[in-house]
Amino acid sequence: MNESTPPPRLIGLDWGTTGLRAYLMGEGGRVLESRERPWGIRHLPAGGFDAALDGTLAGWPDLPVLASGMVGSRGGWREVPYVELPATIDAVVLALDVVDSASGRRVHLVPGLRNTTVADVMRGEETEIFGALALQPVLAGRSALLLPGTHSKWVNVLHGRVVDFATAMTGELYTVLRHHSILGAGLGKDDPPFDQDAFLRGVQSARDSGASGALSRLFSSRALVLTGELALPAVPDYLSGLLIGEELRGAIAAGRINTSTPLQLIGNPVLCRRYVVAASCFELGMALPPRGAAALGLWQIARAAGLIPHVESD
Amino acid sequence: MNESTPPPRLIGLDWGTTGLRAYLMGEGGRVLESRERPWGIRHLPAGGFDAALDGTLAGWPDLPVLASGMVGSRGGWREVPYVELPATIDAVVLALDVVDSASGRRVHLVPGLRNTTVADVMRGEETEIFGALALQPVLAGRSALLLPGTHSKWVNVLHGRVVDFATAMTGELYTVLRHHSILGAGLGKDDPPFDQDAFLRGVQSARDSGASGALSRLFSSRALVLTGELALPAVPDYLSGLLIGEELRGAIAAGRINTSTPLQLIGNPVLCRRYVVAASCFELGMALPPRGAAALGLWQIARAAGLIPHVESD
Repeated sequence: MNESTPPPRLIGLDWGTTGLRAYLMGEGGRVLESRERPWGIRHLPAGGFDAALDGTLAGWPDLPVLASGMVGSRGGWREVPYVELPATIDAVVLALDVVDSASGRRVHLVPGLRNTTVADVMRGEETEIFGALALQPVLAGRSALLLPGTHSKWVNVLHGRVVDFATAMTGELYTVLRHHSILGAGLGKDDPPFDQDAFLRGVQSARDSGASGALSRLFSSRALVLTGELALPAVPDYLSGLLIGEELRGAIAAGRINTSTPLQLIGNPVLCRRYVVAASCFELGMALPPRGAAALGLWQIARAAGLIPHVESD
Repeated sequence: MNESTPPPRLIGLDWGTTGLRAYLMGEGGRVLESRERPWGIRHLPAGGFDAALDGTLAGWPDLPVLASGMVGSRGGWREVPYVELPATIDAVVLALDVVDSASGRRVHLVPGLRNTTVADVMRGEETEIFGALALQPVLAGRSALLLPGTHSKWVNVLHGRVVDFATAMTGELYTVLRHHSILGAGLGKDDPPFDQDAFLRGVQSARDSGASGALSRLFSSRALVLTGELALPAVPDYLSGLLIGEELRGAIAAGRINTSTPLQLIGNPVLCRRYVVAASCFELGMALPPRGAAALGLWQIARAAGLIPHVESD
C-alpha cells in the first residue's frame, strides 16, 4: 500500500460452509484487498478455525474482525442465536457475539435471522441484504429481494427492516439430482457450456405445470432423452431451467412477487443472469445485482456496532 | 415338488435396476417357487446377464422365460422399443423381443410403454398393471392406478387399455435428499422406525402449500430442527410425508384424482400403506394393493403370446 491508499479500518469475513472470503477494508467500506480460501466450516485446515483465520489474515494489521455466515451456526466456531423478524440492522448489532482466536484476534460474529411465521432461517444473507440497502437506499423503503444460490432466499424489506423471507432449496436440489439421481445418468462430472434453449425449455415446462407444480415433471429430464426429444448434454440446463422455473412459479403462486414489482437480485452475477433469463418467461422484471453487497454489509454492521474507531466520513 | 404340485409351465423374471426376482409358475400363474437376487442391471455379477440368469435359474427346468423391467432398457440386456399409448396387452405381446443366453435359454423381453402426449416412459410397471387387471377384472373398465416407488406411476386404464400415465420421482427424490443433502445432516445411514406423527406433519405441510407447491417448503425439514420444532430423528418421515404429500397435492391439482374416485394401489405393501395414511389428509380413498400382480402379469403376457404350451385351464 502506498501513501494514496486509505488506511485499513476493518477486516470483514464472509465465512460459509464451503469457503471463506476475507476483506481488508478502508473508509466507507472500500475493499483494499480481498482473499479467498477453500476453508469453509466443513473444510477447515488442520488446526481448525484458528488455523484458517491466521492463515487467511497473515500479514494483515491488528484490526477489528467481523464475520458473517455459517461460522456462527451450530457447526461453526460459536453458535450465535438467531435474531427474529422483523429485523433491523440495530437488532443484528445487539445480537453480535465474539470469539477469541488462540493468536489473540477477537472475532465478532453476525447472527442469522429467523422467521417464526414459517420455520425458516438464514445466516450470511442478512449481511448481504444490509449491504445492498446501503448501496441502493431506495430498496430500504419497500422492496422484494432475491438471493439465489444453494438455498435461495426470497426476502421482503419494509422501512429498512427484513419483515419476511423464505428459502427455496433450488441450488442444492439441482446438485443432488444432477450428481446423485438417474437424471444425471451418462453425463460427465462437469457441466457443458450454458445451453439457453434447453434452459428456457425447462423454465417453460415448469411455468406450464400450473398448480400441479414442476415436481410432477421432473422425470421429463430423463424421459425426453429416452424418447430422443432432448440431447443428453442438454439435460443439465433443462433441469436447471425446470427447477428455477418452479422456484419462480411457486413464488408467484404464493404472492411473493407479481408482474408489476421488479425484484432486486443480490449475489453471484452468473447465477443471477439465469434468473433474469427465466423471469422473461413469466414477464417478470428483475434487476441485476449490485456489486460488493457482502463486504459493504459487513462494514455497515461494524460501523453500527461501533467497532470502527475514528471514522472520518461515510 | 411332490405329486400334488402342478407342473411348472413358465419362468417369469421381474428384472429391474437394483434387483432380480424370478418366479417358477404353474397353471393359472400360480407361483411354485420364487427367488430374489441382488443382480439388477446395474449390479450384475461377473459374467454379466448370462451369469445372473444361470445363477438365478439354477436347477429349474427348461421352460419359456419371460422378463419384464429394465432388462429391456438401453442399459439392459437388449433394448426393446416402447409401445405407445393407448396400450393393450396384445400390443405388448406383438412387441416382445428375445435374447438367447450363452447357456441356451431363450429369454423373451417385455417392452415398456411410452406416453407421447407428455414425454414419459415406464418399464416393468406395465406388467404389474396387466397382472392387477387380471386379479381384479373390475379395474379393466375404467380405473386410476398408482404404483408408488422410486419412480411412482400414475396410470389411467380404460376398457383394458393403458390410456395415460405420468411419473413422479418421489422415491428417488427422497433418497437423494435424505442421503446427499443438508436435510439428512446429523442422521445415520439407516432410517428410524416409522414416525407417523412426523409423516403426517409433512403431508399436511405439503397439502397446505397450495398452488405454490411443497418444493418451496422443502427447507422446513432442516429449519424446524434448527429452531427446535422438530426432533432430528423425525426428519426422515417428515421429509417422506412432505414429498408424498406433494405427489398427492400435485396429482389432485392436475386432475389425476378426485375425492369421489378411489385409487387402486399396486406394489410394495409397506410403501403403499404410507400412501393410504397420506391420502387420509386429502380425504381421498385408496385401495390396498392386490398380492402377486407382477408374477401374474408375466403369466398373462406369456399366455397371450402363446409361450405356454398345453394350457388346460385358466
